[in-house]
Amino acid sequence: MADAQNTSQDLAPMRHSLAHIMATAVQHLWPEAKFGVGPAVENGFYYDIDLGDVTLSEDDFKRIEKEMRKVISQNQTFERSEKPIDEAIVWAEEKRQPYKAELLNDLKRAGTTAAKDLDAAELGLPSEGESAVENVSFYTNGDFTDLCRGPHVDSTGVVGAFKLMRVAGAYWRGKEGNPQMQRLYGVAFTTKEELDHYLNMLEEAKKRDHRKLGRELDLFTFSDLVGAGLPLFTPRGTVLREKLTAVAEQLRKNSGFERVFIPHITKTELYKVSGHWDKFGEELFLVDSQVTKDQFALKPMNCPHHNQVYSSSPRSYKDLPIKYFETTTVYRDERTGELGGLSRVRSITQDDSHAYAQEDQVGEVVGSLIADVNRLYGDVLGMPLKASLSFRDDSDKYLGEKSLWDKAQATIRDLAIANNLDFFEVEGEAAFYGPKIDFLASDALGRQHQVATVQLDFVQPERFQLVYVDNEGQEKRPVMIHCALLGSIERFLSVYIEHTAGWFPFWLAPEQIRILTINDTVLDYVDKITTILAGTTLMEPLKYNELRYSVDARNESLGKKIREATSMKIPVQLIVGPKDVEAKEVSVRTQEGEQKVSLENIADFLRGL
Amino acid sequence: MADAQNTSQDLAPMRHSLAHIMATAVQHLWPEAKFGVGPAVENGFYYDIDLGDVTLSEDDFKRIEKEMRKVISQNQTFERSEKPIDEAIVWAEEKRQPYKAELLNDLKRAGTTAAKDLDAAELGLPSEGESAVENVSFYTNGDFTDLCRGPHVDSTGVVGAFKLMRVAGAYWRGKEGNPQMQRLYGVAFTTKEELDHYLNMLEEAKKRDHRKLGRELDLFTFSDLVGAGLPLFTPRGTVLREKLTAVAEQLRKNSGFERVFIPHITKTELYKVSGHWDKFGEELFLVDSQVTKDQFALKPMNCPHHNQVYSSSPRSYKDLPIKYFETTTVYRDERTGELGGLSRVRSITQDDSHAYAQEDQVGEVVGSLIADVNRLYGDVLGMPLKASLSFRDDSDKYLGEKSLWDKAQATIRDLAIANNLDFFEVEGEAAFYGPKIDFLASDALGRQHQVATVQLDFVQPERFQLVYVDNEGQEKRPVMIHCALLGSIERFLSVYIEHTAGWFPFWLAPEQIRILTINDTVLDYVDKITTILAGTTLMEPLKYNELRYSVDARNESLGKKIREATSMKIPVQLIVGPKDVEAKEVSVRTQEGEQKVSLENIADFLRGL
Repeated sequence: MADAQNTSQDLAPMRHSLAHIMATAVQHLWPEAKFGVGPAVENGFYYDIDLGDVTLSEDDFKRIEKEMRKVISQNQTFERSEKPIDEAIVWAEEKRQPYKAELLNDLKRAGTTAAKDLDAAELGLPSEGESAVENVSFYTNGDFTDLCRGPHVDSTGVVGAFKLMRVAGAYWRGKEGNPQMQRLYGVAFTTKEELDHYLNMLEEAKKRDHRKLGRELDLFTFSDLVGAGLPLFTPRGTVLREKLTAVAEQLRKNSGFERVFIPHITKTELYKVSGHWDKFGEELFLVDSQVTKDQFALKPMNCPHHNQVYSSSPRSYKDLPIKYFETTTVYRDERTGELGGLSRVRSITQDDSHAYAQEDQVGEVVGSLIADVNRLYGDVLGMPLKASLSFRDDSDKYLGEKSLWDKAQATIRDLAIANNLDFFEVEGEAAFYGPKIDFLASDALGRQHQVATVQLDFVQPERFQLVYVDNEGQEKRPVMIHCALLGSIERFLSVYIEHTAGWFPFWLAPEQIRILTINDTVLDYVDKITTILAGTTLMEPLKYNELRYSVDARNESLGKKIREATSMKIPVQLIVGPKDVEAKEVSVRTQEGEQKVSLENIADFLRGL
Repeated sequence: MADAQNTSQDLAPMRHSLAHIMATAVQHLWPEAKFGVGPAVENGFYYDIDLGDVTLSEDDFKRIEKEMRKVISQNQTFERSEKPIDEAIVWAEEKRQPYKAELLNDLKRAGTTAAKDLDAAELGLPSEGESAVENVSFYTNGDFTDLCRGPHVDSTGVVGAFKLMRVAGAYWRGKEGNPQMQRLYGVAFTTKEELDHYLNMLEEAKKRDHRKLGRELDLFTFSDLVGAGLPLFTPRGTVLREKLTAVAEQLRKNSGFERVFIPHITKTELYKVSGHWDKFGEELFLVDSQVTKDQFALKPMNCPHHNQVYSSSPRSYKDLPIKYFETTTVYRDERTGELGGLSRVRSITQDDSHAYAQEDQVGEVVGSLIADVNRLYGDVLGMPLKASLSFRDDSDKYLGEKSLWDKAQATIRDLAIANNLDFFEVEGEAAFYGPKIDFLASDALGRQHQVATVQLDFVQPERFQLVYVDNEGQEKRPVMIHCALLGSIERFLSVYIEHTAGWFPFWLAPEQIRILTINDTVLDYVDKITTILAGTTLMEPLKYNELRYSVDARNESLGKKIREATSMKIPVQLIVGPKDVEAKEVSVRTQEGEQKVSLENIADFLRGL
């Protein structure tokens, strides 16, 4: 989550000062407190504290905040001072701060080099590359002094708005086996409005958590027997996958991509040729055959397989660009950190594509891909996009001819401008095989997520000896262009479920329409309605999208029926009572409110949603 | 390939007699010939022969056939005799027949039990279960005597029509390291007409070989880097997969099945619970994680995963039947015998489904599946079906209540009759978990292939503790019903490519229409045609099937354009010349011939194909 107005870097001195103020307050309340490290982090700050037998809880936050406000109201100046390292160690011991003493002793023993894994800013150290440690710096506010490199704001009075959020266990220096400390977190912003905005967003994000909505809306599930990071999609969740994929595929087909189909495994030789063996070796799921001696792997990407399709026939310049696409699941042996969610899974379904182009076709192909990304996120999904153009720097770690790179980068920049992209350039962030465009989509809470990507590749065509015959009969290498529009379907769903809070647009909702009856006298009329629904097919944004509807004709109150349909976030509820039968109408209930629509207009009305 | 008129069993004595006649002829031509075994096989017979330094080739077939005809024309009686085993061994040694001697010695040493792996009928042995060997039988015709149990036809004059087909190397008793013999194959039928019919069919089958057509029509490929048995589908072949799958899925959706999505791997625990670990253990591709200690496997079937989706929510009798379908690839670690083809692959894509039903819903669910199978093979694919109803016998190897079986089998039989199936029943062929229907489709050459299957399962619901709450609030087990319509898409394609000889029906052809221009004056007119084609969508048998067309406007002769389009088996060629422009027509060329169709009728014409 990015800061709304200021960048994290701007706010770091203020947030870091708040960490000191919090430590001051804690020391006032628990004089025996022993401190670890207390940096500024995204959106706020923390301090790791050892309070002996005292266990902090949220009940203590008020007291601590009250004491912090006292320190703030005193507007204490942050004063910098220096001590030789040996004196600093004596200071730490006298103050009974064993963690600070340990850091200083380590530092003294090993010099600056070993201090790299410590938080330099926390330790009052010279920054990396400076000469050996002689002095370390301290900051003092009121009666509290801390080993610290700074910078800080001038005084405790100018720290903006803050709030303590949570306390959690944390091993000293992050190492299991070390003493466990209490990590006390706060958030901080320049103004109260920004803080409130952020806290509201957090509250909203909690409600929208896709793991929670996934259960409530019956979208996906996990099984202990199947394993962590391997989601199973229920019928409702599968509709989301299917329709999103279909939209992305429709864009592909319109842009001249042809579908191919490859297996999920391969002999590992394929990755030795492609070079992925070295790069992806640790993320590979290896597959053992009991029948042959070949070693297989589950594919972590599709490009090497697609290259095999390319090279299955001789290719002429007249055939190029050749464009393959496929929606297929790759497997990566990732640590399954975030369980129960779709953000990080081991079965990753990609809407992947690979185009093979002549050098002078790169602009045309990339331009059409950028246009597809714009259409998908702009017109269809309603998520604002930023584009990061990742270019090479002057180092020699890049493969492929420099002139080819220069031309390709210039083309990418021109296309970004021509397609009206909101873009920024990052030198040195290109892949070793070519420059790329990474697209970042903003969700309804302003959070940015990496989604689509377009990457040029000058290396795989070389490694796989891919060729086409040019108009003079000479063999040439095509340029390869990788692209995913949705990226990982699972990850995109985790973003999009939270973006929409589960209120999917009409064309996408697993159950689009539920007909709610008031009593059984209307059942014949409901048949007339369902006949219309069964004959209605949406053509936008996804062609041939037949309506998905159900009828709730149970002998239950209308109120209960509406509550249930709303809790499942069904975008259109058609309420049918005896009066509607008489008037040849239906009551259409959407998030915007309720209105009457005549039976003869209902199909057009739905097509217009 | 099944015999057209007679079953193999009826023809076995005749074919086995021809093996003796062939051996007689070989002995006349090469008196030092040493004989192995010579059984009747499907469509014919063979004999394994050791000819020392002589290598047979097709050039020798005429001589051998001529000598066989001489033996046949002499109408020698097949006379049976017996010898005690020790005398038989002396006979074999005197006749310098070491292979026969070896078989007899083995037999004598080990008694009947060890003889099980030998060909009892070949050896003149009593059949299995009879008491210990004392005598062995011989058959003599003319000057040739062979150790043999029979039966034979009465005399060499009554053996029908035959033809020697090929000679191939074969290790003695099938074991690598044993002496290599020459296996001489022939085919034989009762009449010359039947033989000719069979030989024509073989010739036709060779032309239709799906591996050959797969290359010629650019449908699929294999890569050494990826591995054997792992086909990669090109854009054209992928259209076939896509459209066939879409038709099968359309039938599923119409029958109330909902799509789900599962990963391709699972912890092996899943198969220990399901019971497949024991059954499929050797066919499993095992997957190693470098990150977790869990052992994973590639899924060889989908039912255990689908059961996890079923049990992810509480289920009520009101929800049943619950019907899941999915087209997904399973992996089986099969020996990759037949390389380069789709008949036997390691990546097997199934159009799989699992329904969970109350006992009294089984009839309704199975009935609807049978109807879907009938629609697919009858209306859509045009392949006649037979159904094998595989029932239990009285043994105790079956799980589940006997009364449930009886009811289910009676239901299946009733449905087979009601749905007008051409069926036969096989007792003792049920799976241990329930009775099933296996469907056999006949191809254009009369060959039968197993395709769809519907299977009841009383066991997995028990093992996975699947439940629903009945109308009295009691937990009950659902019955599970497995079904695949196409079965394995890869295997089905191997059948269907040969069935159609690559001339796919219009709705399915990868490239449906190619417009061939006579010269460049017609290009504006071609634009008008393509505008019509782009706006035409087929709705039968597959809904929303947009036309797939191309334009051949190269500066080549019309003859060359037609030849190329025909060699790619494009069902519709639209030939456009200046006269067509004037007459506002196009010349439509199909396999049926050529006709003029007016521009305004072309869309309707194509929709009617």
